[in-house]
Amino acid sequence: MNDYDVRVAHVKGEHVWHSHTDTDEFFLVLSGQFNLTLRNTDGTETSVELVQGDTYVVPKGTEHKPSSPGGSILMFEPSGTSTTGDNFDGELPDHVDSTTGHQL
Amino acid sequence: MNDYDVRVAHVKGEHVWHSHTDTDEFFLVLSGQFNLTLRNTDGTETSVELVQGDTYVVPKGTEHKPSSPGGSILMFEPSGTSTTGDNFDGELPDHVDSTTGHQL
Repeated sequence: MNDYDVRVAHVKGEHVWHSHTDTDEFFLVLSGQFNLTLRNTDGTETSVELVQGDTYVVPKGTEHKPSSPGGSILMFEPSGTSTTGDNFDGELPDHVDSTTGHQL
Repeated sequence: MNDYDVRVAHVKGEHVWHSHTDTDEFFLVLSGQFNLTLRNTDGTETSVELVQGDTYVVPKGTEHKPSSPGGSILMFEPSGTSTTGDNFDGELPDHVDSTTGHQL
């Protein structure tokens, strides 16, 4: 809608640490569980465990690492936003889909 | 997030015909049922009946009338968007909340 995408992802396992320089990122858990670990500006980490119906917004510029034992999520973000952000840590594991979305 | 609101509304009854001049409007049905009737450019109407998990985007400028036997919905739209659009038909019934959103 407008210049934003509504994306649904099936998630399992560990994603990579990454951040989006220019955009916040909205998450809604549709099923299962979805965890986010965030790096605070003082270097400490904060973890949130989200279950079905929970929502969370990662502020732009905040490094975060998603993970899940299995679940599905809905995201809202500007079209063209990469799932691995503008910067990510280390190498990309095979199971991580670095994409700006797939058309249904 | 960014300059958008994520809004949840509990809906029941008939809303008013209205349109948003400058923005699309995204709907996700969280529970119950949610119906939309849209006025096509040729004057005919199209109705969609949405149930839990269904999504729909009303394009900007398209007149639409929401109604529901009872349900809850999630909407994405630019902050400041009115629930009754930039134009609405007739008088506003008492049960219709014309708002740009309520803080939780």
